[in-house]
Amino acid sequence: MGQSNHSTKVILNNQNFESILFERINKNIRNISLKKDLIDEPINYSLSNPGKRVRPILAYLTADAVELDLQKIDSVATAIEVMHTYSLVHDDLPCMDNDSLRRGKPTLHIKYNESSAVLAGDALQSLAILLIAEDKYLDTSEKITLIKSLCETVGHNGMILGQYLDLKFEDTDPSNTEIIEMYGLKTSLLIEFSIISPLIICNKLNDDWKDLARYIGISFQLIDDLIDVTQPTEIIGKTASKDIESKKKTLPLTEGIEKSQKIIEEYKLRAFEKLHILDLNNHPLKKYVDDLFRRVN
Amino acid sequence: MGQSNHSTKVILNNQNFESILFERINKNIRNISLKKDLIDEPINYSLSNPGKRVRPILAYLTADAVELDLQKIDSVATAIEVMHTYSLVHDDLPCMDNDSLRRGKPTLHIKYNESSAVLAGDALQSLAILLIAEDKYLDTSEKITLIKSLCETVGHNGMILGQYLDLKFEDTDPSNTEIIEMYGLKTSLLIEFSIISPLIICNKLNDDWKDLARYIGISFQLIDDLIDVTQPTEIIGKTASKDIESKKKTLPLTEGIEKSQKIIEEYKLRAFEKLHILDLNNHPLKKYVDDLFRRVN
Repeated sequence: MGQSNHSTKVILNNQNFESILFERINKNIRNISLKKDLIDEPINYSLSNPGKRVRPILAYLTADAVELDLQKIDSVATAIEVMHTYSLVHDDLPCMDNDSLRRGKPTLHIKYNESSAVLAGDALQSLAILLIAEDKYLDTSEKITLIKSLCETVGHNGMILGQYLDLKFEDTDPSNTEIIEMYGLKTSLLIEFSIISPLIICNKLNDDWKDLARYIGISFQLIDDLIDVTQPTEIIGKTASKDIESKKKTLPLTEGIEKSQKIIEEYKLRAFEKLHILDLNNHPLKKYVDDLFRRVN
Repeated sequence: MGQSNHSTKVILNNQNFESILFERINKNIRNISLKKDLIDEPINYSLSNPGKRVRPILAYLTADAVELDLQKIDSVATAIEVMHTYSLVHDDLPCMDNDSLRRGKPTLHIKYNESSAVLAGDALQSLAILLIAEDKYLDTSEKITLIKSLCETVGHNGMILGQYLDLKFEDTDPSNTEIIEMYGLKTSLLIEFSIISPLIICNKLNDDWKDLARYIGISFQLIDDLIDVTQPTEIIGKTASKDIESKKKTLPLTEGIEKSQKIIEEYKLRAFEKLHILDLNNHPLKKYVDDLFRRVN
């Protein structure tokens, strides 16, 4: 069972957590002060096209698991989704992955234009940091710790390096280890930060949590890459089989579908082992992690 | 005369300030921990091609003018230059101003490629925030105040909105007031932040300083636009007369050279009046502001 939270009185369980958290996340995103025109219009477009909201859901479920008031994680969870949205907008650009479809809708540079996509992405990055800096429930020292960690996560040694390697690998032959390292940087780090940030706030971060976060993060990208080669465009909301065309080096493409499924199964076992050690067998976080491993879009 | 600084014992005067500050700025930039390869290589390229370093010089001179130890402003001054560099890298992109020359050298997307320019710019933005978050001389509350203000300065209501309007005006007929508002957002805000940040730290910000910062910031862009139409490529280190070609709406193009020179002269008089009120007639900041108004590149 989920934990209650003092001031917000939220009680999360396996049945209600997704709808409660979705509503909370979308409300926080709608509360970002944006105008209806100029550069705010494409920014709004990118934020209001809801994806799965995986990262903020993980942040809230982790907070709930360690009995941290969900209010304390509102700004960070929103910031993480805003940061993720910026990375998608830039990733979709013609000079990057050149995608025209995202979450079932035209990508930002298709709907508006390329310069608006560059600028909206840029603005989303500073907006993410601002959300944490302006938070009412965190003290200044918590804010600085989180901002520092978030900037490292998305910066030149983190997510950006991962994006760079992902593009570089189109023209090279990376080993499986190198591909997994790239997954770690490009995708896992920000997912890990979602789980780690509430633990930083309540000083409960340990190696079991770190390992769990890593297993969820790496397997998330691996499952994404498997979906790319196994599911049609209608299901996944973005152009299917795009990785082969663009010469991406993903494990399903270099090692095949069956071996990738086996690797995913191993990550799942390891993640479940950590959930057991962390005494979370009956917490909705376990249900959600299970859902993530079963997803087909 | 410049003020001495307790722990660093820097004494700035009209003769030495530029060489002392240039050395300090470039040393701080070299101290940013970057590797020699991958995405760090283009990041390094963009940072090591020194421009005029106007923004950090203004930050240090202001700190000196109010007797704030220069150490207290090191990370912010560096962060401002890093943030400015990110804006230039993205501004030069083919979908933005499409510039091939910057500070006399090929722009980043020409030297490397477009995706590296997008990613290097993205990484520079988070790096700028990280530099302040990691600073040793500021306390956490000063850091949060500065990070908040910097994110507002460069965000969707600030610099990015200015960049957006600058592009939008290529297809519209803005009034002079609208052009000056765009200058304010696109260029002046970050220059103003350079002057305002040391004043925030030592709690000496007042309306005279704000006005001075504004006059320097707005006129800086106006002088840039005048240089674009009056000076050759060899002098300015970027492609000359580019604004006419790209249908930019700049005051020298909408109002003519002579009227623009008159407006600049008015800003100079107003800036000097504020410097007088602030008792800075003998401070190197006055010499530097004078130099900025006289510049031809």
